[in-house]
Amino acid sequence: MNFDPNGIGQKLHRHVSALFPIFRSITGEGMRQTLAYIGESIPLQIRQVPTGTPVLDWEVPQEWTVRGATLRRLNGDVVLDIADTNLHLVHYSHPVDRVVPIEELQAHLHSLPKQPDLVPYRTAYYANSWGFCLAERQRQALTDPAYHVSIDTELAPGVLNYGEMVLPGEGPDEVLFSIHCCHPSLANDNLSSIAIAIELAQRLERRARRRFTYRFLFAPGTIGAITWLHLNREVTARIRHGLVLSCLGDGGPPTYKRSRRENADIDRYVAYQLRAGGHGDRVRPFLPYGYDERQYCSPGFDLPVGCLTRTPNGEYPEYHTSADDLELVRPEALADSLALLCRLVDMIEADYVPLGTCLHGEPQLGRRGLYQAIGGQPIGADPSSRFDQLTLLWVINQADGTHSLLDIAERSGKPFAAVAAAAEALAAAGLLNRADPSPARASDRQAGDR
Amino acid sequence: MNFDPNGIGQKLHRHVSALFPIFRSITGEGMRQTLAYIGESIPLQIRQVPTGTPVLDWEVPQEWTVRGATLRRLNGDVVLDIADTNLHLVHYSHPVDRVVPIEELQAHLHSLPKQPDLVPYRTAYYANSWGFCLAERQRQALTDPAYHVSIDTELAPGVLNYGEMVLPGEGPDEVLFSIHCCHPSLANDNLSSIAIAIELAQRLERRARRRFTYRFLFAPGTIGAITWLHLNREVTARIRHGLVLSCLGDGGPPTYKRSRRENADIDRYVAYQLRAGGHGDRVRPFLPYGYDERQYCSPGFDLPVGCLTRTPNGEYPEYHTSADDLELVRPEALADSLALLCRLVDMIEADYVPLGTCLHGEPQLGRRGLYQAIGGQPIGADPSSRFDQLTLLWVINQADGTHSLLDIAERSGKPFAAVAAAAEALAAAGLLNRADPSPARASDRQAGDR
Amino acid sequence: MNFDPNGIGQKLHRHVSALFPIFRSITGEGMRQTLAYIGESIPLQIRQVPTGTPVLDWEVPQEWTVRGATLRRLNGDVVLDIADTNLHLVHYSHPVDRVVPIEELQAHLHSLPKQPDLVPYRTAYYANSWGFCLAERQRQALTDPAYHVSIDTELAPGVLNYGEMVLPGEGPDEVLFSIHCCHPSLANDNLSSIAIAIELAQRLERRARRRFTYRFLFAPGTIGAITWLHLNREVTARIRHGLVLSCLGDGGPPTYKRSRRENADIDRYVAYQLRAGGHGDRVRPFLPYGYDERQYCSPGFDLPVGCLTRTPNGEYPEYHTSADDLELVRPEALADSLALLCRLVDMIEADYVPLGTCLHGEPQLGRRGLYQAIGGQPIGADPSSRFDQLTLLWVINQADGTHSLLDIAERSGKPFAAVAAAAEALAAAGLLNRADPSPARASDRQAGDR
Repeated sequence: MNFDPNGIGQKLHRHVSALFPIFRSITGEGMRQTLAYIGESIPLQIRQVPTGTPVLDWEVPQEWTVRGATLRRLNGDVVLDIADTNLHLVHYSHPVDRVVPIEELQAHLHSLPKQPDLVPYRTAYYANSWGFCLAERQRQALTDPAYHVSIDTELAPGVLNYGEMVLPGEGPDEVLFSIHCCHPSLANDNLSSIAIAIELAQRLERRARRRFTYRFLFAPGTIGAITWLHLNREVTARIRHGLVLSCLGDGGPPTYKRSRRENADIDRYVAYQLRAGGHGDRVRPFLPYGYDERQYCSPGFDLPVGCLTRTPNGEYPEYHTSADDLELVRPEALADSLALLCRLVDMIEADYVPLGTCLHGEPQLGRRGLYQAIGGQPIGADPSSRFDQLTLLWVINQADGTHSLLDIAERSGKPFAAVAAAAEALAAAGLLNRADPSPARASDRQAGDR
Repeated sequence: MNFDPNGIGQKLHRHVSALFPIFRSITGEGMRQTLAYIGESIPLQIRQVPTGTPVLDWEVPQEWTVRGATLRRLNGDVVLDIADTNLHLVHYSHPVDRVVPIEELQAHLHSLPKQPDLVPYRTAYYANSWGFCLAERQRQALTDPAYHVSIDTELAPGVLNYGEMVLPGEGPDEVLFSIHCCHPSLANDNLSSIAIAIELAQRLERRARRRFTYRFLFAPGTIGAITWLHLNREVTARIRHGLVLSCLGDGGPPTYKRSRRENADIDRYVAYQLRAGGHGDRVRPFLPYGYDERQYCSPGFDLPVGCLTRTPNGEYPEYHTSADDLELVRPEALADSLALLCRLVDMIEADYVPLGTCLHGEPQLGRRGLYQAIGGQPIGADPSSRFDQLTLLWVINQADGTHSLLDIAERSGKPFAAVAAAAEALAAAGLLNRADPSPARASDRQAGDR
Repeated sequence: MNFDPNGIGQKLHRHVSALFPIFRSITGEGMRQTLAYIGESIPLQIRQVPTGTPVLDWEVPQEWTVRGATLRRLNGDVVLDIADTNLHLVHYSHPVDRVVPIEELQAHLHSLPKQPDLVPYRTAYYANSWGFCLAERQRQALTDPAYHVSIDTELAPGVLNYGEMVLPGEGPDEVLFSIHCCHPSLANDNLSSIAIAIELAQRLERRARRRFTYRFLFAPGTIGAITWLHLNREVTARIRHGLVLSCLGDGGPPTYKRSRRENADIDRYVAYQLRAGGHGDRVRPFLPYGYDERQYCSPGFDLPVGCLTRTPNGEYPEYHTSADDLELVRPEALADSLALLCRLVDMIEADYVPLGTCLHGEPQLGRRGLYQAIGGQPIGADPSSRFDQLTLLWVINQADGTHSLLDIAERSGKPFAAVAAAAEALAAAGLLNRADPSPARASDRQAGDR
């Protein structure tokens, strides 16, 4: 999967820009507009689940409709208006339309004293409350004894929406990409990943061959993943590899948080790619806090799902503030993240467990054109070959049906691409087959099936 | 278990002082006096096993009675008298009453040329011999051609005594504390541990709830443990955790020698506590030399029993000499050792393997009052809480019935107390049960049952 | 196994000198002469396998006979003659007798531009080709337009020979020493190992007791090992330990390449000996390139066979050139390699898995004369003993039928010899038996039997 990094970075940024103004929350019109936008580029199935549906330990919440919200002085001057930034309203605020004394109002205001110019992003999904978010400087200017709070929202039975795209592969085993898309005008978290997922899905659609089935899930955070898991328990047993994508557009280096298993294949694939890109130090242990990997890695599921970001949540100063905007997200960072994901997909597709046809003694490579004709000299790299002689010997030696190509690359210290090319040459010579009928190893399958 | 460290240190030292003058050996009246003293404070069962009883590979020895022992010049001047220090007589010396030429006498004298003022402690339990221990300076003064040796002892059929106290718990699994009490006037080795065990046992008696049964064994070294093991094979299968206590009163830092298993729970508990106290470097691998852990950790038993000391045997210059006296043992060190043991007991009682009731997806903590109401901000420590939000999430994530609270503390890096408090909160909310009906994990039980 | 290092070094060097002039290849008269020479010292069985016999994935090649080979100027002046050095002819060159233009000739010449005075060693066993090897300086002097190539060889149905010597032991389990002997006048690679193997075999013949059966295989590289493996599959299941011997005469330190298993007993034995000799840094991971360990460690066999050299193949500048001569190989290095192998054999013979007869509690050592009579003093080393008290306790503690003497040495940090001596003392006292009826551990047997 190759592409023009300049052009694609701009294209990704245009997706982010197009989605930025929409007032998204975990339910409601903004979420539907967002899914509709995604559906313009890829064949997205949009699901809806009614309010009150029990999902795992939770329940699908009421749908939240926002028609407007302002904070005004009693003379009518507008202090805050969500028309300016939709971050001003605490999500799931219930309707209010009354004069509120300043003392009472203060308990409903959220600001960041250490970042006095930024508006924070806050939610109160299950709190039956209301509130405004504003810059600390705006808050300091609120010196009137009372203000008029006007929150024109509605909490009522409705639906929860999410979007799903499934690209069938040769086998039933699946690769899951999960992207939360409930945040309002926050560009890096997580419009960056929505944009990248759109383009990654398009590339996978066009891919000549897919061993795995690919599933993209665009859903509200937490409740969306929980709803999907509730409705798709049988699918989870087929998930061989998975990634939660988030914060993929800022200028920081890529960062990977391993799955709960810590050494699932996906953990090793991403670690390999980060090492290869000089970011081996950006691999982190599992932590049961973060994004929807919390749900996928809950002990009952324990799926091989890690989380790929650039700068992780909470570690950049603009996180969950009005500064997570279209400036923070950079075209080149978006393109770099997409390229990393494309390399990962290539690796996932390329890896398998080889089984040699000639396990007793080395096969005679010379008569198959796989060995230098003149002996006695050191084996060396043939610059015209995609792999050297030693890589070939490593694959032959390890192809006993218990080691994947990645295992072989790691033991030998040879590049995965060279190992894969050597395996291809051996397979072409009839010296190698695939040990695993399906793409995944038995050990992983068992783990996933529990 | 709280206590006044000053008061308790003095009290512990008074126990040591009271026991110091008694002429103890592995059998005889001194041992009985010692056990009687202990029995004044705790309900001790005093056992007696007749001479000649086969115990494992050994046999209960004859009882040794000491009525007096002197070394005198031929003019009657007393050179050595065990009335001065009971260390002067080699233990299990047989009776002698005759004039001994100096050359012959020298072969029966034990002194420390490098510590010329100290009297060493020596034994000859199974050697059918006699001897005196004395300071090197005293020895240098022995210039007469002969001396009168008068050893008024008796070796005759009798009994071996030991004392045992069992505090029943909710379950049959046991915690063993084993204390050797055969040494004569040596304060640190091992009156310090007798004193501490008395007070620890009293605290455990008063404890509101005991999941484990606690067994305290006060017995002569080696032969006592061997006798007890011989008579209590069925009990050994129930021992989940055990500690040999010794040398717990000197000014050195606490030191732990792991069990033969090296990673038994008791090894991890003590290592945790030493780390928490800044003594993580004082944990040592198993060594088949030392105290009665040699017997408990013999391969046929292989019990999870480690050895807790301050400065270990042989590593302080006063060890097994007359300088191991009431000055060497410090009240504050005794109190510190007791406090460490109390924390260990708390941990042993608190640890268990939790099993979540909601393993698929995270449980909805908000509706149970366990989650912050306003989302979007970083999770942080609530100073009013005994655990932070992340600790709660770790416990939920790991409570799959295969990890103990200590496992969770170690994986998460969170304090054990916080993990235990979070588990308590989850249990109160109905989100957690105990996976193990009995206090111990199945894996340990199997290991112990072999 | 003791010997005079000076005398034996000279003797080993004489073997090398005697074998040096013979024109060896993988088949033919030179190989037979070499085997005959070995057979003068040890009772060697010489096998022959006909051309065309299928062996694993290969086939026994035609036999190659060399009667002479020269490169001459058209005026008859001799430029190259294998009478000068048998390295001049590329092995398995087919017959040629014609004038060859210099352009064509160049494609058949092999030299080393960076080592302009050395003649390289090259082979073309399966290439149906011909060629000469010469010094770069000789090559530069070839300025005539054409030369007369006269290669008087024959490729015809015949046999492949190898030599085998089996010294029966008490049990059926085997130790394999495999030595390739197809190289022509190359002293270190591998006449050094042939010489050492002759002497090692003689010592093993004279050894009073052999628990293991020892098998020495002198065979052409690659095809010899493949042929032997093909014909001896049932033997491979009995190989408990094996070493490929090569390059054992140069001045470099001993070097060991581990078997594919990486932690087979042989890997640990050699690592122990190299550590003991101050060469712990000379142990290397398995690599599927090198000598016949490539065949023994192919996945279908996966035998516990490592490779012992001094400077490994390809790492000394004289490797596979005319400089690998009688000067490169040093008597003292040959003697040192033999001594190392003798120590290894001693260790292989000495190691076993002990099982104590008294596993519950320590046995009473005192009444068996194995413990110091006077207690209370630190246990120390008795200079008159081959082991100290602590070593004895370690053996007792670990002799539960799951640890070998080497395991005990490694866990305790005590010398293997001391551990073995302590085990011997315990066995003499009736406190220890051999847990394994045959020399090998069950775990290894299983691995070897697959």
